Parts: sequence; C-alpha cells; structure tokens
Amino acid sequence: MSITITAFASSPDRGRGHARDMRVRWALEEVGLPYEVRLLSFQAMKEPAHLALQPFGQIPTYEEHGLALFETGAIVLHIAEQHPGLLPKDSEARARAISWMFAALSTMEPVIVEREMAGYQEGDRSWYQERLGMVEDRIRRRLGQLSARLGDAEWLDGAFSAADLLMVTVLRRLEGAGLLEEFPNLAAYVTRGQARPAYRRAFEAQRAVFLASAKD
Amino acid sequence: MSITITAFASSPDRGRGHARDMRVRWALEEVGLPYEVRLLSFQAMKEPAHLALQPFGQIPTYEEHGLALFETGAIVLHIAEQHPGLLPKDSEARARAISWMFAALSTMEPVIVEREMAGYQEGDRSWYQERLGMVEDRIRRRLGQLSARLGDAEWLDGAFSAADLLMVTVLRRLEGAGLLEEFPNLAAYVTRGQARPAYRRAFEAQRAVFLASAKD
Repeated sequence: MSITITAFASSPDRGRGHARDMRVRWALEEVGLPYEVRLLSFQAMKEPAHLALQPFGQIPTYEEHGLALFETGAIVLHIAEQHPGLLPKDSEARARAISWMFAALSTMEPVIVEREMAGYQEGDRSWYQERLGMVEDRIRRRLGQLSARLGDAEWLDGAFSAADLLMVTVLRRLEGAGLLEEFPNLAAYVTRGQARPAYRRAFEAQRAVFLASAKD
Repeated sequence: MSITITAFASSPDRGRGHARDMRVRWALEEVGLPYEVRLLSFQAMKEPAHLALQPFGQIPTYEEHGLALFETGAIVLHIAEQHPGLLPKDSEARARAISWMFAALSTMEPVIVEREMAGYQEGDRSWYQERLGMVEDRIRRRLGQLSARLGDAEWLDGAFSAADLLMVTVLRRLEGAGLLEEFPNLAAYVTRGQARPAYRRAFEAQRAVFLASAKD
C-alpha cells in the first residue's frame, strides 16, 4: 500500500496546521498508515496535471495505486472505511458518525470560512467591521447549537471518530478569533482532539514542511 | 422498512423545490423506496424534540426504525449504500463518486448559499451591490472549474450517481441568478438531472405540500 497526498509547498499559515492536508495526515496517523507527501507551489495547483486530480485546484489530494480522490471528507471517509479506528463497527452508529462528518464540513465550516474570506476580500472596505459582526453572529449561532448538543460529552457520538477529527480541525480555524472561548465545552473539545498522539504526529509532520521551507 | 423524513410545513420557495428535503425525496424515488413526511412549522424546528434529531434546527431529518440521521449528504449516502442505483458497484468508482458528493456540498454549495445569505442579511445595505459582485465572482470561478471538468460528459463520473443528484440540486439554487447560463454545459447538466422520472416524482411530491398549504 503506497499512499501519496498533496500539500502546500509554502504553508500559508506558517505551519499552524490549518491547511486541509492536516485532516488527512491525522486520519492516516490514527490508523497507522505511512504516506508520502508531494508538495505543490500555488502555480502548480492551477496547472492541468493537478486539476486532473483536483478539479478546483486545491490541496490535498489522495492517491493510492490507481485510485485518486479529492475532498477531505471523502478521503477521510475512505481511510475510515478501509481501516479500523475511525468509524464505529455498528452500522447505525457508523451512519450517525457520517452525519456528523457532513455537519462539520457542510454546516459548520462554511460560516467559519466566510469569516476568513471576509478578511481577505473585504478587509479594506469601509463596511468590513459591520459585515464581520454579521458573520460572527452566524458563527456564534452554530457554535451555540453545537455546544448545546455536545454538553459534557467527550466526543460527538460515543467514541472518538472521523467526525470528531473533522469537527476539531474545522473549529481550530477559529484560533485567534476569540469566538470559541465563548463556549468552554467546545474549547475543551478542541484541546482534547489536539492532545491525541496521532494529532501531534500529524501536526509536527506538516510543521516540518514549513520549517524546512523557511530555512531555504 | 418504514422511512420518515421532515420538511417545511410552509415552503419558503413556494414549491420550487429548493429546500433540502428535495434531495432526500429524489434519492428515495431513484431507489424506489416509499416514505412518510412529517411537516414542521418554523417554530417546531427550534424546539427540543426536533433539535434532538437535528442539532442545528434544520430540515430534513431521516428516521428508519431506531435510526435517526441528519445532513442530506449523510442521508443520501446512507440510502445509496443500502440500495442499488445511486453508487457504482466498483469500489474505486464508488469512492470517486463520494468525492463528488462532498465537492457538491462542501466546495460548490457554500458560495451559492453565501449569495442567498447576502440577499437576506445585507440586501438593504448601501454596499450590497458591491459585495454581491464579489460573491458572484467566487461562484463564477467555481462554476468555471466544474464546467471545465464536466466538458461534454453526461454525468460527473460515468453513470448517474448520488453525486449528480446532489450537484444538480446545489446548482438549481442558482435559478434566476443568471449565472448558470454563462456555462451552457452546466445548464444542460441540470436540465438532464431534472428530466429524470425520479426527480419529477420528488418535485411533484414537494410541490403538492405547498399547493395544499396554499389552499388553507
């Protein structure tokens, strides 16, 4: 089994681990699979060779023999289906975990990405602060709903699963925004995810790419 | 097998089929499964009984004996895994189709939803037109990438699958925006999806709810 993923050659967040390859690295570490990383420049991401693997010109991709996948949700689900440790064995618990995987990526992440996009695209407009407030209210509403559901549970639905892996990486994107801290049980949930040995290994592996590039 | 889904008692789009129950109805029609619909008022969606099924207070939900699922991606995937007709049998083709399911909901839908949110939340601001232009440029970029990948193929990856079902319903949300028409192969793709008998049956079923409520 030879697995290759793609990642940014030049980490936009200086090794803080917010790029989406982190999710795939973490999943591979949880199930104990070795992998290779092919680093891509921003220009290479827009070229035909990469677009053939990733139609939207993003990272990561996942290649395993002849199979090529994109979208972190699909890649993590594929890994979880092939190897024990990321999804419950019971079919109903498994289906519920997949509900939470989609919730992380389709319901929670878009509002968080919107806050980042506002910073990039609208940060110099006179109305930026007003709109930022609107976006943050949407984030707070979603965080409040998630916080109410999680309560004092350790993970979203019983044992740690691929759903928690995705949700923790999505919530981590709020680092520095001061929003997660309004929901102590969510902040503790993220800390719990980050304390897993597989998370640490994945984090150090992506950070090593940044440190090597910074030395050049 | 007794399946119950939830939907809006009062259709916000007056029966045009943009609510997400349409996706689940369509999937159930494709595989030939009967289902019941429990209609919910906007107030009922925020009450504890519904939040226990759907932590974010949305529709649809899916109940089948003791199993309760949320998130249309997870529900459609569950149906596709249990019944033939929505995912390829070959495991690699199946994994690729799941990549496209996530792409529809995580990469394409958020920018389209953002355009709708801008209309609701920012429509009365002086800067609305300026921001709408920015959002529409983001949508155009994604549509251009999808259009380039689809080319003159009939469906995203070989035979019609759950990925096309989700992507068509996501692209339909652009009805009336004048954006899809800039990409004739995508407009034809949506028309092709809407021509499927299972789509028609699902569409008429959700429209019947609106027509009945409008008579009251």
